[in-house]
Amino acid sequence: MATLAQRVRGGERRAAARLMRLLDDGVSAGFDALRELYPDTGRARIVGVTGSPGSGKSTLVDQLVRVWRDRGLTVGVVAIDPTSPFSGGAILGDRIRMRQHEADDGVFVRSLATRGNLGGLSRSTRDVVAVMDAMGMDRIVIETVGVGQDEVDIVGTAHTSLVVLVPGMGDDIQAIKAGILEIADIFVLNKADHEGVDRAEREIRAMIELGGDLDGWKPPIVRTIASSGEGVLNLADAVDDHLRWLDETGRFEDRVRRARVHHVRQALRDRFERRLDRAITEQTGIAGLIDAAASGEQDPYSVADAVLAELSVG
Amino acid sequence: MATLAQRVRGGERRAAARLMRLLDDGVSAGFDALRELYPDTGRARIVGVTGSPGSGKSTLVDQLVRVWRDRGLTVGVVAIDPTSPFSGGAILGDRIRMRQHEADDGVFVRSLATRGNLGGLSRSTRDVVAVMDAMGMDRIVIETVGVGQDEVDIVGTAHTSLVVLVPGMGDDIQAIKAGILEIADIFVLNKADHEGVDRAEREIRAMIELGGDLDGWKPPIVRTIASSGEGVLNLADAVDDHLRWLDETGRFEDRVRRARVHHVRQALRDRFERRLDRAITEQTGIAGLIDAAASGEQDPYSVADAVLAELSVG
Repeated sequence: MATLAQRVRGGERRAAARLMRLLDDGVSAGFDALRELYPDTGRARIVGVTGSPGSGKSTLVDQLVRVWRDRGLTVGVVAIDPTSPFSGGAILGDRIRMRQHEADDGVFVRSLATRGNLGGLSRSTRDVVAVMDAMGMDRIVIETVGVGQDEVDIVGTAHTSLVVLVPGMGDDIQAIKAGILEIADIFVLNKADHEGVDRAEREIRAMIELGGDLDGWKPPIVRTIASSGEGVLNLADAVDDHLRWLDETGRFEDRVRRARVHHVRQALRDRFERRLDRAITEQTGIAGLIDAAASGEQDPYSVADAVLAELSVG
Repeated sequence: MATLAQRVRGGERRAAARLMRLLDDGVSAGFDALRELYPDTGRARIVGVTGSPGSGKSTLVDQLVRVWRDRGLTVGVVAIDPTSPFSGGAILGDRIRMRQHEADDGVFVRSLATRGNLGGLSRSTRDVVAVMDAMGMDRIVIETVGVGQDEVDIVGTAHTSLVVLVPGMGDDIQAIKAGILEIADIFVLNKADHEGVDRAEREIRAMIELGGDLDGWKPPIVRTIASSGEGVLNLADAVDDHLRWLDETGRFEDRVRRARVHHVRQALRDRFERRLDRAITEQTGIAGLIDAAASGEQDPYSVADAVLAELSVG
């Protein structure tokens, strides 16, 4: 009998899906398998895609997946969906997006919900990416609504980050550029058949110029019409160009190292939170301290110090 | 000589600003003062305001501040601004927003930047709110672009949460409702003179109906035109209604308790991160483990376990 890790390494989709479920549920067998698989990671090229709601990101990603499949590459997609409290959000989205690739073993799609899971988002994303990497996916796309710092950070740990903008954003470009500009390796100007596309390109170019020649890579602006597929071949080429540039300048290794350190910190945060949750449930002393804070009897800072001392992480 | 905490308690603006700076810089004297001030907190009513970029939130908050000032209330405003990497964002915004209230001792505005400060956002916000509370502000507004989970969580810890929407959002309403619907105590339909206002109200009402009668409070929809001030008196009344409802049903104490527990958890996370940063700098064993992860020699999960074990010993 092959172990779960071995089956994932062999590219078995059902084993990968099972492992992701175990990780979601926080089952320790899942983390053991992930640890066993870690040496098999590092081969995939990871592409982050972010943009505001309505920018056509998802359609664009679907088109990119098609181009990569045509070029003989396997593709994993991690779609980070804000969950609607009423529709069941991510799970539904997962099913819909899976359907069109159902017959294609070269594509693996996974949606993650962000709701009520502060911090957990980064952890799950990194773990899911690691599983897809270990199962042999050539390209992995992390797609997110790039508006929160958490989401921006995740996309920023990809090897190549795309920021999707659309014409006529007006003031919104001011809000969007916050934090996102720094991570953009490629700007995608989607809905390029809409009015105001030239002005939008000028605005983006002005932002790029202001940012200076970061690292020696000047982010290109690629126009696309995701709904018809126009420009998507160019976009795939631009991604290849950037990946090649990373390789040739030795920056690829830098990005991988940085992502690994982020991963450790995330794993540490996660372990700390789980330990804390367990302590609150199991250690009456700690539960009592939290109660004292809840009632206002003690201030939160003193309680945090006392809890930390109890946990002996102080 | 009065201590810093005493001066803040006396309502001294310069002392409050100084304390906020100390907290920003992580100076321990700041945390000592905050601890000393904690018994003086809990009197302010905290109002969260969130909405997408371009919804007119800031103008609306300025109008609300005016109404409250007219009613003899003092007001603190914590504005969470996405920082532009080029303009220096928050600090600039702070100065501009301060200017119009410069002569008014009853208003204290503080802008916080979100950039590159994952997790730190919640901490700073809570601490700044605590300082404003201790200095005697009657109302404290937390204003944020409510798109990331982190931002939503912060607004959700307010006593009364306003969600600002505008007509003609189309598909965006789908994205906006994620996570935000649950926290809305009052919906503000701003730019109510724009086309599509009736349709937007119907959509919001449909969402509210779907959500059921949460807790016995049905969120009202208040139309406003922030630019002219129309509807803002109604909005201030709706906020009062909600605060009264919280008091009368005993839910106010529930919200306060919940916020205090959040505050403890945030303080714990923050301490853990600082402890970790210190350990990476000062303990060669831990730095070595992180290096082993960065080079790919060891997997991040094992390294996280090992670092946590080291931290517990140390």
